Amino acid sequence: MRTRVTDMLGIELPIFAFSHCRDVVAAVSRAGGMGVLGALYFTPEELEMELKWIDDHVDGRPYGVDVVMPASYEGADMGVDSAEDLVGRLQGMIPDGHRKFVDDLLAAHGVAELSGSDAGKVLLGWTDATARPQVEVALRHPIALLANALGPPPADVVELAHARGVKVAALASTPRHAVKQVEVGVDIVVAQGTEAGGHTGEISTMVLIPQVVDAVDVPVLAAGGIGDGRQMAAGMALGAEGVWTGSIWLTVEEADTPEMARRRILEATSRDTVRSRSWTGKPARLLKNEWTDAWEAADSPGTLPMPLQFMLVSDALRRIGRSDAAELATFPAGQIIGTMNQVRPAKDVVFTMVEQYIEATERLGRLTQE
Amino acid sequence: MRTRVTDMLGIELPIFAFSHCRDVVAAVSRAGGMGVLGALYFTPEELEMELKWIDDHVDGRPYGVDVVMPASYEGADMGVDSAEDLVGRLQGMIPDGHRKFVDDLLAAHGVAELSGSDAGKVLLGWTDATARPQVEVALRHPIALLANALGPPPADVVELAHARGVKVAALASTPRHAVKQVEVGVDIVVAQGTEAGGHTGEISTMVLIPQVVDAVDVPVLAAGGIGDGRQMAAGMALGAEGVWTGSIWLTVEEADTPEMARRRILEATSRDTVRSRSWTGKPARLLKNEWTDAWEAADSPGTLPMPLQFMLVSDALRRIGRSDAAELATFPAGQIIGTMNQVRPAKDVVFTMVEQYIEATERLGRLTQE
Repeated sequence: MRTRVTDMLGIELPIFAFSHCRDVVAAVSRAGGMGVLGALYFTPEELEMELKWIDDHVDGRPYGVDVVMPASYEGADMGVDSAEDLVGRLQGMIPDGHRKFVDDLLAAHGVAELSGSDAGKVLLGWTDATARPQVEVALRHPIALLANALGPPPADVVELAHARGVKVAALASTPRHAVKQVEVGVDIVVAQGTEAGGHTGEISTMVLIPQVVDAVDVPVLAAGGIGDGRQMAAGMALGAEGVWTGSIWLTVEEADTPEMARRRILEATSRDTVRSRSWTGKPARLLKNEWTDAWEAADSPGTLPMPLQFMLVSDALRRIGRSDAAELATFPAGQIIGTMNQVRPAKDVVFTMVEQYIEATERLGRLTQE
Repeated sequence: MRTRVTDMLGIELPIFAFSHCRDVVAAVSRAGGMGVLGALYFTPEELEMELKWIDDHVDGRPYGVDVVMPASYEGADMGVDSAEDLVGRLQGMIPDGHRKFVDDLLAAHGVAELSGSDAGKVLLGWTDATARPQVEVALRHPIALLANALGPPPADVVELAHARGVKVAALASTPRHAVKQVEVGVDIVVAQGTEAGGHTGEISTMVLIPQVVDAVDVPVLAAGGIGDGRQMAAGMALGAEGVWTGSIWLTVEEADTPEMARRRILEATSRDTVRSRSWTGKPARLLKNEWTDAWEAADSPGTLPMPLQFMLVSDALRRIGRSDAAELATFPAGQIIGTMNQVRPAKDVVFTMVEQYIEATERLGRLTQE
């Protein structure tokens, strides 16, 4: 298959696979698509190890890295130099009432405390101070694509990537965002509909893609609700030149998804997700359960702005993950989890997607010939 | 174009146009698609007049009628015989606090009282008692399709339609709903994504259509977010055999849409809609404004179940429509209102959709040949 995107990146198939798991990234790139490693959860040192592993297992095929540099977050204007400095200042901004709400919620579900807790110390890579070191690590590897998950990346980061011959993509949930991204030099816009897992906007993929395609001249990838080849064909029919997928990789054989989460995904319907601020402070589609419900309940203190909310809840989510309180264990998940009912190798998912894509396009062609 | 749906109904194009305006219905049917008149707002006598007009203006082409027989509503089990009886009983169920909330909201926006008010008396066609007379009127006309907007129609209504050679369609927002509809004899399932205007579920069109196509053997129409030929091609790529459209007809030349609403739609973006219970008590996508916001605010009494909510607000919405309080005037609208920027004849919308469909499918075919 050829589109401007496959030409730009030297890939065979315009199928992008976002995953936090290096095995999935390498498998999809080896199958002819492009794996994109989500760097968010890794320290610069960990990221270095992951990318080294991918370099050794990708057979020279192109792959990408996804960082999170939100255009706005609490502390963005504090003028701090280090992540440690920023963490200290932000910690003081979390109200005691919020800490008590989380403690009480976990106690009510019998979730045990953990020793060596990092409560309130986790910032993750979604500030400029924490994402920049990730970018520096990524650009020391032979990556083909640097993607930014929350709006336009800083212009100097785009320049840095371009200077290394690396293309830049950014996620957009409105046509206005897409135009801003192209203004700072983004090469590929990932137009992501509300049905997507993780941080997401309000407009559906069906409505959003044509608007973004009409608003910008650079190639557009369709994201949100893309899990099979019919959905891939639909995304391309809407004007996209490739598809960006995420949730679908949570249940492939190679994925390091925790067993409790994998089981929950295989059982879930498409109505079992919800757009919620309870993970990071910005709206993200998550598995709907007693955790997301609790933040909507009458006694909820409301969520905090990014990155305070994740600092508040990161330790709680870790404790929940190690407990039996499955009813509280949430994670980013798109509406397509309703159709994810089996565990297959990543390569099979890619090849089935292409077969279904071809079937769908042939069927469409026949409809107008009869 | 040929699909099972065009064969079943004897139409040239599998494009269905839902509209409350008879002129739009006749224009789309004359253009080769199928206009479907929404009967909701009409008394049986008014509906008789509208259908007589359509019979005289449709050049013998097939058209349809859409009624609303919800599977569940307050009063469904009261065993009343007439709409008048039902209205009287339901009126007593509307709390005074809710009436005061609506009165205060209108007063705050300077909306005048109207003489001859029908406050609280309007039930509309969304109970069995009110929709059945509409069905009887519809079946006296040469309609080709009877559609039900809120779930599976009663089995005896399906039989009645089939006995007259009329096909039956029903809207579904989950695969489970679709299976239930086929069980009562529905011939066509309209799978409607959350981006659609009016009563709508949570699952997006991109995710929903393949699930419904896989769940039932009857043909499926794609609904929600379908406004141009790229979206039509996407819907068909997902497995649908036709498209069901609604919002797109609000701004065609033939539409009797009030000027204030038409102007608002032409200006709106796709983020200017919201799923709200403030119109009928069931979630429906509406134009987002101070009306929908007020029902979400901290001092809102909450919405009432169908059909009480519309009985509560119908007079208010009529008063707002006749006032200058544009900030309160809401109506059902899908996310595609963001791309509706011009007024064209209905025929042009149909023909452009087909041209774009053919372009999109040809483009898709080329991608795999290069």
